Amino acid sequence: MTTPPEQDRLHAQLAFAMEIDKLRRIVRRNTLMDGSRRENDAEHSWYVGMLAMVLAEHAPPGIDLDRVVAMLLVHDIVEIDAGDTFVYDASAVEAQAGLERKAADRIFGLLPDDQATRLRALWDEFEERETPEARFARALDRIAPILANHHNEGGTWSLYKVTAEQVLEKVKIIEEGSPTLGAYATEIVELSVSRGHLARA
Amino acid sequence: MTTPPEQDRLHAQLAFAMEIDKLRRIVRRNTLMDGSRRENDAEHSWYVGMLAMVLAEHAPPGIDLDRVVAMLLVHDIVEIDAGDTFVYDASAVEAQAGLERKAADRIFGLLPDDQATRLRALWDEFEERETPEARFARALDRIAPILANHHNEGGTWSLYKVTAEQVLEKVKIIEEGSPTLGAYATEIVELSVSRGHLARA
Repeated sequence: MTTPPEQDRLHAQLAFAMEIDKLRRIVRRNTLMDGSRRENDAEHSWYVGMLAMVLAEHAPPGIDLDRVVAMLLVHDIVEIDAGDTFVYDASAVEAQAGLERKAADRIFGLLPDDQATRLRALWDEFEERETPEARFARALDRIAPILANHHNEGGTWSLYKVTAEQVLEKVKIIEEGSPTLGAYATEIVELSVSRGHLARA
Repeated sequence: MTTPPEQDRLHAQLAFAMEIDKLRRIVRRNTLMDGSRRENDAEHSWYVGMLAMVLAEHAPPGIDLDRVVAMLLVHDIVEIDAGDTFVYDASAVEAQAGLERKAADRIFGLLPDDQATRLRALWDEFEERETPEARFARALDRIAPILANHHNEGGTWSLYKVTAEQVLEKVKIIEEGSPTLGAYATEIVELSVSRGHLARA
């Protein structure tokens, strides 16, 4: 007796579902808006997905918002194997790329082939940052910690001694995805410097 | 001098974004798959959004999957004010409805009117459970804790003395949204009973 193919598909999908639960245990450097604790990758992914829904009008016209949301929901899944990298740690960011590709092979590979290919393509698109959808998704991923640090009087910037110049490098990524949000992030940086919550180099 | 209307919109959107960050602090009865801690509403919302993407083929044909995902991302936001209700506490579930409607008025009301209306409509659709999209979304919301308890040798079922009959009531909601997932959830209940992880009444 063999298992019907639909059952095989469901079991593969559930194996993937069990595996990605682990994303809740990957803790990032960034905190909740109130600074009470560091955030995990799963709740961060929800948050940026919501940002996409709410800030959609600041994306270039004609963007496929649903693909942005889907990309944001899957964008950090590779960190189950590869761990979180602090965006201001340049050497770690470099080493990370290979680990993340291996993780993508393993984790998306748990799904039936057609779905593995589709989710992997979303993750590749996010990483390559070439489509307007990927650039907007990246912009939201980058603006979220800036909003939190602003709300939280410097937050992880002070903690990890990040400078205004370093943050402005990340703001360029926001500008690429959304000029409006880029301009707003620049305002936050200037305000944070003037309030002593962010130091110049 | 007045603020340009686009700036007003952005500020309203960011006020909403700040507010919904609090969803990360609403702790549910259910735990992570490994039982290590209780889950929060934000990471739960991400998880069921991912389940929608991965289990879409078990929904009725022709469903609008993107709306299912959007509905799942917003479905618990009202719990920022209303708190989480344990699904097996019938009297609490009843009292909850009014609180949640007030919460929806307040929280979605932070957004510009057009967006408040759109997100509120998604939440209403989820609550009313009349469209195939809402029924599928509900099914995923209900199957998630069943998967966790199954994986976790009874988990919150044993902890809160939930019976197989009570779980099977919830399985009906899963069946309404997806016969395949309903059948699978029924199998889990039977297996859990036979392993002594779930008691009969």
